[in-house]
Amino acid sequence: MNKIKVGIIGATGYAGAELVKLLLGHPIAEITAVSSVSYEGKKLSEVYPNFKKLADITLENADTVIDKCDVVFASLPHGLSEPLAQKCLEKNKLLIDLGADFRMYDGEAYAEWYKREYSHPELHKHATYALPELYRDKVKGAKIIGNPGCYPTSIALACAPAIRNGLVETEGIIIDSKSGVTGAGRGLTQGTHYPDTNEAFAAYKAGEHRHTPEIEQTLSDLAGKTVKVTFVPHLLPVNRGIESSVYLTLKDGVTKEQVIKCYEKTYENERFVRMEPIGSYANIKNVRCSNYCDISLHFDMRNNKLIVCSVIDNMVKGAAGQAIQNMNIWYGLPEETGIDMAPQQF
Amino acid sequence: MNKIKVGIIGATGYAGAELVKLLLGHPIAEITAVSSVSYEGKKLSEVYPNFKKLADITLENADTVIDKCDVVFASLPHGLSEPLAQKCLEKNKLLIDLGADFRMYDGEAYAEWYKREYSHPELHKHATYALPELYRDKVKGAKIIGNPGCYPTSIALACAPAIRNGLVETEGIIIDSKSGVTGAGRGLTQGTHYPDTNEAFAAYKAGEHRHTPEIEQTLSDLAGKTVKVTFVPHLLPVNRGIESSVYLTLKDGVTKEQVIKCYEKTYENERFVRMEPIGSYANIKNVRCSNYCDISLHFDMRNNKLIVCSVIDNMVKGAAGQAIQNMNIWYGLPEETGIDMAPQQF
Amino acid sequence: MNKIKVGIIGATGYAGAELVKLLLGHPIAEITAVSSVSYEGKKLSEVYPNFKKLADITLENADTVIDKCDVVFASLPHGLSEPLAQKCLEKNKLLIDLGADFRMYDGEAYAEWYKREYSHPELHKHATYALPELYRDKVKGAKIIGNPGCYPTSIALACAPAIRNGLVETEGIIIDSKSGVTGAGRGLTQGTHYPDTNEAFAAYKAGEHRHTPEIEQTLSDLAGKTVKVTFVPHLLPVNRGIESSVYLTLKDGVTKEQVIKCYEKTYENERFVRMEPIGSYANIKNVRCSNYCDISLHFDMRNNKLIVCSVIDNMVKGAAGQAIQNMNIWYGLPEETGIDMAPQQF
Amino acid sequence: MNKIKVGIIGATGYAGAELVKLLLGHPIAEITAVSSVSYEGKKLSEVYPNFKKLADITLENADTVIDKCDVVFASLPHGLSEPLAQKCLEKNKLLIDLGADFRMYDGEAYAEWYKREYSHPELHKHATYALPELYRDKVKGAKIIGNPGCYPTSIALACAPAIRNGLVETEGIIIDSKSGVTGAGRGLTQGTHYPDTNEAFAAYKAGEHRHTPEIEQTLSDLAGKTVKVTFVPHLLPVNRGIESSVYLTLKDGVTKEQVIKCYEKTYENERFVRMEPIGSYANIKNVRCSNYCDISLHFDMRNNKLIVCSVIDNMVKGAAGQAIQNMNIWYGLPEETGIDMAPQQF
Repeated sequence: MNKIKVGIIGATGYAGAELVKLLLGHPIAEITAVSSVSYEGKKLSEVYPNFKKLADITLENADTVIDKCDVVFASLPHGLSEPLAQKCLEKNKLLIDLGADFRMYDGEAYAEWYKREYSHPELHKHATYALPELYRDKVKGAKIIGNPGCYPTSIALACAPAIRNGLVETEGIIIDSKSGVTGAGRGLTQGTHYPDTNEAFAAYKAGEHRHTPEIEQTLSDLAGKTVKVTFVPHLLPVNRGIESSVYLTLKDGVTKEQVIKCYEKTYENERFVRMEPIGSYANIKNVRCSNYCDISLHFDMRNNKLIVCSVIDNMVKGAAGQAIQNMNIWYGLPEETGIDMAPQQF
Repeated sequence: MNKIKVGIIGATGYAGAELVKLLLGHPIAEITAVSSVSYEGKKLSEVYPNFKKLADITLENADTVIDKCDVVFASLPHGLSEPLAQKCLEKNKLLIDLGADFRMYDGEAYAEWYKREYSHPELHKHATYALPELYRDKVKGAKIIGNPGCYPTSIALACAPAIRNGLVETEGIIIDSKSGVTGAGRGLTQGTHYPDTNEAFAAYKAGEHRHTPEIEQTLSDLAGKTVKVTFVPHLLPVNRGIESSVYLTLKDGVTKEQVIKCYEKTYENERFVRMEPIGSYANIKNVRCSNYCDISLHFDMRNNKLIVCSVIDNMVKGAAGQAIQNMNIWYGLPEETGIDMAPQQF
Repeated sequence: MNKIKVGIIGATGYAGAELVKLLLGHPIAEITAVSSVSYEGKKLSEVYPNFKKLADITLENADTVIDKCDVVFASLPHGLSEPLAQKCLEKNKLLIDLGADFRMYDGEAYAEWYKREYSHPELHKHATYALPELYRDKVKGAKIIGNPGCYPTSIALACAPAIRNGLVETEGIIIDSKSGVTGAGRGLTQGTHYPDTNEAFAAYKAGEHRHTPEIEQTLSDLAGKTVKVTFVPHLLPVNRGIESSVYLTLKDGVTKEQVIKCYEKTYENERFVRMEPIGSYANIKNVRCSNYCDISLHFDMRNNKLIVCSVIDNMVKGAAGQAIQNMNIWYGLPEETGIDMAPQQF
Repeated sequence: MNKIKVGIIGATGYAGAELVKLLLGHPIAEITAVSSVSYEGKKLSEVYPNFKKLADITLENADTVIDKCDVVFASLPHGLSEPLAQKCLEKNKLLIDLGADFRMYDGEAYAEWYKREYSHPELHKHATYALPELYRDKVKGAKIIGNPGCYPTSIALACAPAIRNGLVETEGIIIDSKSGVTGAGRGLTQGTHYPDTNEAFAAYKAGEHRHTPEIEQTLSDLAGKTVKVTFVPHLLPVNRGIESSVYLTLKDGVTKEQVIKCYEKTYENERFVRMEPIGSYANIKNVRCSNYCDISLHFDMRNNKLIVCSVIDNMVKGAAGQAIQNMNIWYGLPEETGIDMAPQQF
């Protein structure tokens, strides 16, 4: 089989670099071109010295990447992917977008939260929101793949069985998430300067994070009606990993056993979702550098609450790994091709 | 003025060592005796080399501490403080207990959560639960002071204004807390072995942590009726600090402005509680090594939620600092005596 | 090709678990049996939950591992591998020993530093010390492979070109090394309790670490005469990685250019050694979770000093990865088989 | 006694903020004015929220600070303190400079390493280099105090007894130092971005760090002849603390006992220097947030090496604390006034 020619636009951001890392080990794909606005003309390994001798490829521009490749991964700030998608469509290249431009079904919620109208509204009918465990079937036919956000991935997988099966109320859902600092990106800010971040912890964007509409879109889809959530992210002093603690209210009469069985059944054949044994807690260290999502279930029966803890690696299942998983699905490859590494506990 | 002779039983635990650290700088108190079951006969500075030349005092036993001192701080596993309290009462020494034995008003909740009946039920009428900002008046007359738990301190201060003033519903309260590793104590466990904890994050004891009844006791007190909460703690890979994100439902018609004004008014004269400006987030780094509690208010008006983030240093305001604050109150000293250090941001 | 049946004795130690991690991704090897004295009868994934669904294999005992496998990796405290080696030899199984028992050429140095005589001296003639970049040729014929220690690996690769080519004096060599905490193993100690290790840093075993004779053996070999070194390790508050800063005195007349050229030439065809460009510094983050050794050269010409900084991942090139590299060599496989993953920068 | 009016120029840098922290607790000094070029007009507590309610003082400009205060602390990049010193001299204000402009005896070494000539050479005769334990006597009469650099403080105290007493050779001295990230300052750089620094470790500026001539000046002073050193600093992933491992060659016939006695005698009456018991290692955690320097002695008699490990808090003894120590000496106050806090082990 000829290798799939893949390219990465925005290869020097963290998600881009993780794509490089993973694709270097992919047996069927071959990194053919990479681009970066800030570092065009430099070697990738000059920006990321861990890639010395492995990815000494020179950074080019976005157009070149589209021309040279069959699959284009884009990891860019929102608003920049729509024009790229237009070009990919014209040249019949698959675009897997790790940004926010192709995650929402409708432009309204996007406009409300991102303060920007779609520039190419007609494009979106060729796009699909692709969280594989929930929307696997829609991936194959798509021409543009909207790769999910990191928080929404951890949260949708935590909630899906309970909501789809009507085990919990759809009101009053509280989501308390914590993300490692790579989630904030490579750009320098005072808040991610080492001494400001190390030994620190705080919430941010409480009730106003842009991943909220994406979370609500999926949960509404699962519930078959509009669901709103209270979502509060926190910055965790670790490099990688997201933990989401989701607080759900059990419907009257629903038992622990029902819930446990429902989750186990939902995920028993999923390659990348693992249920913790009851009594254990999902820990970011157990999924580090892997494409797994670990989920644990806890019950506060005094208050009829189901607490679901889910963990992912924000750079892998929350970004680059899931993007490759989507590429694999699109090409009909086994879903785990190139992303089947065991978690790196330490 | 003669110095107050203070002693510490359990001086080699983390809270005990923090008491030593703080009392070394207290202008009116003097560390007169310290004890440790595990290290009796050794110098404290052999166990904690940071105290070289500062606390080369020899560790004795509990009885000696009681005999030599006016005030006895005890920092022991639950169940061990009741007999000590009996002795202190007989010898007319003030006991400030940092353990769990004197925090509950009634023995029932204690027995339910700690799986142990009071051994000296009659003692408890001499005891008071002493979270100064809420129960300052009760401290002076007490003979036994039950110093609050770390999580309950951060949570009670986060909730008090809203609940006491009836701004929020008392049902469905969700509390998602995160604690630094000193909160788990000095004892060796696999879960606090460096490589297992570093770059890791998970919940623990979801819905079943023993601080739950203490939290509920205070919130019920403030509400004037029984309040139950869903409380989920998490282990944070930092040495010190607790952050609690508390999710409260605003009563119909309550406005942001009302809430903000209520909190500001409640705490305007409190030396150790600071409100963050709106838009800022309480961060554990801003209270490190200090007796402060910082609180920030956030609103998710789409869901009528008030989110209160509060932070303390679990070793200071959550243990040793608050214990000294209580001693100061008992003696009629300015509350901040010896504990007025600015937070150590880094 | 039939897969190589590999087994791991001591699979629940850190090096053992890293072997499992890596061998799960090895295309030609298959984990057939694992053992652990402490956890016999449990599943490996109960001890290391990151292996859920990946290595649910049950821990057995050492004898079973030897019986079931073609290659036995042993990761045990010193003194325990000699009897195992005897059994492997009898049953014609290849032993790759990650412990200290088969690293020294002669029993004298071993006895001096490890305070223990060889129990099976005759075995050692079947063994080879196998640092592939220096002793590749000896690996194939061996029946027992003594896998190098972590510090010695980083140090030998840092010194080899300069010493073998006579560019530096062999006296007065100073080696200041720093290791991540996994290097101290999984056993619980106060010194590796999270709050004691985090935000801490100190030397340990200065001038008396047991890796010293192994370092001196290799450097003497390279120099063709006895070399002694001053070796001081430090504990670094990170999970993984070793950095060694080696201070060498340039011989009269030796130039920077000579040194640089010598290192580049020595390592130009080595798959797992990378020279940093001049002006860059070898950083543990650039080799994390990989089998690479990065080396940077620095010159203090005011004092005729060559400073070589080398970094490895102590768990991979310093233990499990190098052991697999040795297995690959023994079997005539490409050296990088199963260990060609790119470093995980974050 | 009227309080000393102190001001801080450059109060929003890390050393400046640490000065604020410490001076808030100084019984005889009073922060009267602070300045910052970047934040003039803002409150200090807006930049450092840990100072809320404690230092809500408004940031002014340097001239105002000089006018309002008796003592001016300046914490500025090199080259900016000379003009300030001129003004302080004219207005008869004591300047304690935490920058590099007044550390060197002669302008030549300064010009060579800092690539800049003195702009006010005549000023330097009013200045003294003030490492109190070595140059205490010169402090009182000075009008400008050059506060030592952080690395040189840890190194000079480590070497002083051995060099001054002729116990070691003055050639071939190797110094391997490691500093926490606050040492790199508050300015944003890729190298101090959290994910780049966390779990990372590398040397930097090997053999070319600007603290080298300051170190050599002091050691030459102590030796009575020119001493050159090889100095290699490393960046340590912790917030605070410096560890220096110094490698010295014992002169023929010098014994361990001589060395130990010499160090103990030298420092027995020093308030801020503590010798570790033999067998213990100086650890940055034992001096954190304090003005102490802990020193441990180790011997590699196989190679006639004395290894001295010394640790300080780079922000306290390495900057702000030592500056206050110098102010105390200048005013004839007990040296520990306001800086006698016990180290914060966690």
